[in-house]
Amino acid sequence: MVILGIDPGTAICGFGLVEKKNYQYKLLDYGAINTPPTITLEERLVRIYDGIGLLIDRYHPEEMAVEELFFNNNAKTAIAVGQARGVILLAGAHKGIPIYEYTPLQVKQAIVGYGRADKGQIQYMVKTMLNMKEIPKPDDAADALAIAMCHGQSNRKLM
Amino acid sequence: MVILGIDPGTAICGFGLVEKKNYQYKLLDYGAINTPPTITLEERLVRIYDGIGLLIDRYHPEEMAVEELFFNNNAKTAIAVGQARGVILLAGAHKGIPIYEYTPLQVKQAIVGYGRADKGQIQYMVKTMLNMKEIPKPDDAADALAIAMCHGQSNRKLM
Repeated sequence: MVILGIDPGTAICGFGLVEKKNYQYKLLDYGAINTPPTITLEERLVRIYDGIGLLIDRYHPEEMAVEELFFNNNAKTAIAVGQARGVILLAGAHKGIPIYEYTPLQVKQAIVGYGRADKGQIQYMVKTMLNMKEIPKPDDAADALAIAMCHGQSNRKLM
Repeated sequence: MVILGIDPGTAICGFGLVEKKNYQYKLLDYGAINTPPTITLEERLVRIYDGIGLLIDRYHPEEMAVEELFFNNNAKTAIAVGQARGVILLAGAHKGIPIYEYTPLQVKQAIVGYGRADKGQIQYMVKTMLNMKEIPKPDDAADALAIAMCHGQSNRKLM
């Protein structure tokens, strides 16, 4: 079972691809789709949509997991992330891939075991679970890998 | 010059199509793309994306005007509207149509003449400018027509 995890964003959209087999994870790819503020918003959204489509075509993930975001007070950021999230969900839907959503709390509980885990603890667990020598960079990619594995942990059918 | 105006939203996405000729506007079409909460978010986004694409194919608008939204405190709504807005901008970009964004303040100033106009004044002006017998419904469609004409008023090249 190949899972594509996504940490949505307009400037930096993190992605992580893992394969789950026999209760273990194999790292396939990770990184970020970066779009510059020098191009129009719609062109940035086209690049994110195309980037997700290319990842799907290359790795044929069977399921997609996308972070569900909450903002306390910054509505401007919320709109920007929402726009990126919209085209990410559309890209997955256009490729016919089932999409699952997880809150940061669910990711922490699935990866570290409790909901108040900090960023460093999540990153350490991602590195360990994937037998990596170093913590994956950027942070958005590490988050995306955590989301992908959160989906792997949450769904019994995947094992 | 045919202009497609959009008032973005996930449950109700208002649209309005006007043709500007000799400083006057002709109403082509208006309405709303409604998506039910009973289907998945990604399916709703697919319907909005497809709906905008169908309108573009049918009326061949040369430019698109989309409302730029501000929220004071409801980040959850901001994410939801952002997601719809993302796929609307993508639909326009995929069809190669230049997209312009206007704030509610700019729409009020362009249509009524001052920024503190209320919803009723905007709707009355939309009805008058388009020689309509009644105020267009739903409100989202009236807003979309106002955004389309705001673009018509704002851009000298359109005349």
